[in-house]
Amino acid sequence: MRVEQILLEHGSGGLLSHELVAETFLPLLKNPYLEQLEDAAVFDSVGQRYCLTTDSYVVHPIFFPGGDIGSLAVYGTVNDLAMCGGKPLFLSAAFILEEGFPMQHLERIVHSMAEAGRRAGVSIATGDTKVVPKGAADGIFITTSGIGLISYAPRLSVRSIRQGDSVILNGPIGDHGATILAQREDLGLSTPVRSDSAPLNGLVMKILHASDQVHCMRDATRGGLGAILAEIAQQAGLEIIIEEKAVLVREEVRGICEILGIDPLFLANEGRMAVFCASEDCEKILQCMHDHPLGQQAAVIGKVRDNKRGRLILDTIIGGSREVDLPTGELVPRIC
Amino acid sequence: MRVEQILLEHGSGGLLSHELVAETFLPLLKNPYLEQLEDAAVFDSVGQRYCLTTDSYVVHPIFFPGGDIGSLAVYGTVNDLAMCGGKPLFLSAAFILEEGFPMQHLERIVHSMAEAGRRAGVSIATGDTKVVPKGAADGIFITTSGIGLISYAPRLSVRSIRQGDSVILNGPIGDHGATILAQREDLGLSTPVRSDSAPLNGLVMKILHASDQVHCMRDATRGGLGAILAEIAQQAGLEIIIEEKAVLVREEVRGICEILGIDPLFLANEGRMAVFCASEDCEKILQCMHDHPLGQQAAVIGKVRDNKRGRLILDTIIGGSREVDLPTGELVPRIC
Repeated sequence: MRVEQILLEHGSGGLLSHELVAETFLPLLKNPYLEQLEDAAVFDSVGQRYCLTTDSYVVHPIFFPGGDIGSLAVYGTVNDLAMCGGKPLFLSAAFILEEGFPMQHLERIVHSMAEAGRRAGVSIATGDTKVVPKGAADGIFITTSGIGLISYAPRLSVRSIRQGDSVILNGPIGDHGATILAQREDLGLSTPVRSDSAPLNGLVMKILHASDQVHCMRDATRGGLGAILAEIAQQAGLEIIIEEKAVLVREEVRGICEILGIDPLFLANEGRMAVFCASEDCEKILQCMHDHPLGQQAAVIGKVRDNKRGRLILDTIIGGSREVDLPTGELVPRIC
Repeated sequence: MRVEQILLEHGSGGLLSHELVAETFLPLLKNPYLEQLEDAAVFDSVGQRYCLTTDSYVVHPIFFPGGDIGSLAVYGTVNDLAMCGGKPLFLSAAFILEEGFPMQHLERIVHSMAEAGRRAGVSIATGDTKVVPKGAADGIFITTSGIGLISYAPRLSVRSIRQGDSVILNGPIGDHGATILAQREDLGLSTPVRSDSAPLNGLVMKILHASDQVHCMRDATRGGLGAILAEIAQQAGLEIIIEEKAVLVREEVRGICEILGIDPLFLANEGRMAVFCASEDCEKILQCMHDHPLGQQAAVIGKVRDNKRGRLILDTIIGGSREVDLPTGELVPRIC
């Protein structure tokens, strides 16, 4: 069925997001860089390999436990570069502000971006500010872009994933999504949740230093771990099998999911990533991850199998197994 | 006076825009790249010089004679790279869409971006799409970023401008601003105006090839020729004297300005630039500009004089002369 209007689901990271890219953006903008469909475009310039990425941030509310739209905009773009093996060189930041937006909020957000940049080791080198009349935007939207330098020789890509690869996850899932949901719904929680939003470039550099058999990395943002693994399985044409019991979910996040009837597998994360690597290097990668604050709970959560079908299979805690599809519908609009 | 809220004028390219940068962004984000205050950040990587730039586009209406938000977003960012002497390598595009936005409009816009990319010789290599609920944005906002490779050895910068430099303008001013205004106000014009929106990188490459004494280039976008020259004069600490009669304004643009009581000097352009160069190279630069479709009406409009005051002086047609200040107030919100 032809969709005549943009729906919230087009921004979900799920099925309609993919259709929009496949049916509108790719055919019209058609070029080999965009067609990589990775977190960033990878290109060579004067004998060096670089990556370029961009993301708009429209998160609501703009301030939340563990971060705000500013830190999110810095870490999100740093992480997209890191997933391609890129050391972030510089970021840009473009602000769309609604007339009447409190100056004090803007200052707090810019301050938080500066802090986040320091933590990630990257400068915001250039920017832009547009102001639209009251009612034409909701407070503040930030678009960050980043340029990264890649020195890891093997190509990190969905296309590098091989049968037998292990899948490592660096920590519990769903913290960011649950935090945003809890803020919106006023669930009156006794144990507060905090966004996992963090810069993954430091951890990634350790991993790439430890092994030359890392094949692909992907941060589990919009659509959650479920959506990114289902997407990768489809793109790679390989089956990914995940053990549910190996995927950590904090008690408080599980609680929020139960109240709202949501699967944590589809909740957004902003500091969690899946690493695909040759299984023989799995142990040394795990070891180096455990030494890093953002990888202390890293664990192997699954493996890659070639059975001619690109799909994600979840081996459940109760002993069954089920196929996980790209989510349809929009679970949480404006999650990032 | 401390401003407590964001005003439309903060996005005007005029006085409050400068205050926002000087008092909020620079002190918090503090780094030598941002402090260049050029159209793009220039940096070195592995022995090569690159530039990175970003701009958000919120123009209203999104379709107008001579272009649309899509072509504007491509040319605007290409031009910012060109002003630093950068050959555009790749662009990124991030879309913020309002729920309910017509798919047909999106397709028309993306198609126009692809066309614009082909004309400018650059690919959109990566992107992002966010959707916000109805009412949280006005239709579509696009943020493009770009990375460019600089091979021109002299540093193009406000700081390179010298006493005695000539100022060249490549064509008549105000077409873009007048077009957007005419669309909004329904002036019932007999001679329609068209935006001058165009990619300047081809013309710039010709200029840089012709002379190694180009000192600075700046496209006269938000705030118009008046704002960018007043800003440059201030930053350079030099006096710029412009001859009003040398600055071309189309009859129909002048008509719109008269109806609306607006000075064309402050109307936005999207394909016009000021070139500062050593006066001895002025003739050969003009000659090569005249050979290019976007420079056929290029003319020397003024010169740079050192009298210890950074200001813009206009020698008027009627024989007087007056100082031109950075505009205050917002002439035309959502002009780009």
